[in-house]
Amino acid sequence: MTIQKLSSDERATQIAQLNGWQNVEGRDAITRQFRFADFNEAFGFMTRVAIKAQAMDHHPEWFNVYSNVEITLSTHDANGVTERDIRLARFIDEVAGGK
Amino acid sequence: MTIQKLSSDERATQIAQLNGWQNVEGRDAITRQFRFADFNEAFGFMTRVAIKAQAMDHHPEWFNVYSNVEITLSTHDANGVTERDIRLARFIDEVAGGK
Repeated sequence: MTIQKLSSDERATQIAQLNGWQNVEGRDAITRQFRFADFNEAFGFMTRVAIKAQAMDHHPEWFNVYSNVEITLSTHDANGVTERDIRLARFIDEVAGGK
Repeated sequence: MTIQKLSSDERATQIAQLNGWQNVEGRDAITRQFRFADFNEAFGFMTRVAIKAQAMDHHPEWFNVYSNVEITLSTHDANGVTERDIRLARFIDEVAGGK
């Protein structure tokens, strides 16, 4: 299955429905930062995302230090943001709750 | 317990006994890159390191994308590399095996 990059309009519409995701400067990708209570909570969150990502065969780029997690999503095969990224972002938002 | 930054000599000696760790340019920290077979293996490795880090109350800065993991270690309280970083690096090397 070929997966298509979202158009600018589609992407803007989708991002508006997510929680705090932004376009990455100079790159076709979206990003969001999360702050948790501590490392335990941050890594628990990452583990839930990892299990989902593995099931979707669609993986994040992410950075963690202590209670902070920064996630960037893009679809390598499409060289940009696709419906897969939006689906994973939606799951991430659910798992993160109000963080 | 106060923890002291390692001297340049101590640090050089310790790094030489680790596997592939390097000084970070422009910062008092050490770093190493790892490549695994796939995301499952990379995240399994991260999970083992996370459990150890939590037990040590000493946490890495790390970046992961798919099978790649980049880890940076430094001790915030000492504003540099300490024996804690070396101990965590040694554990990380053990867990990573030949990667």
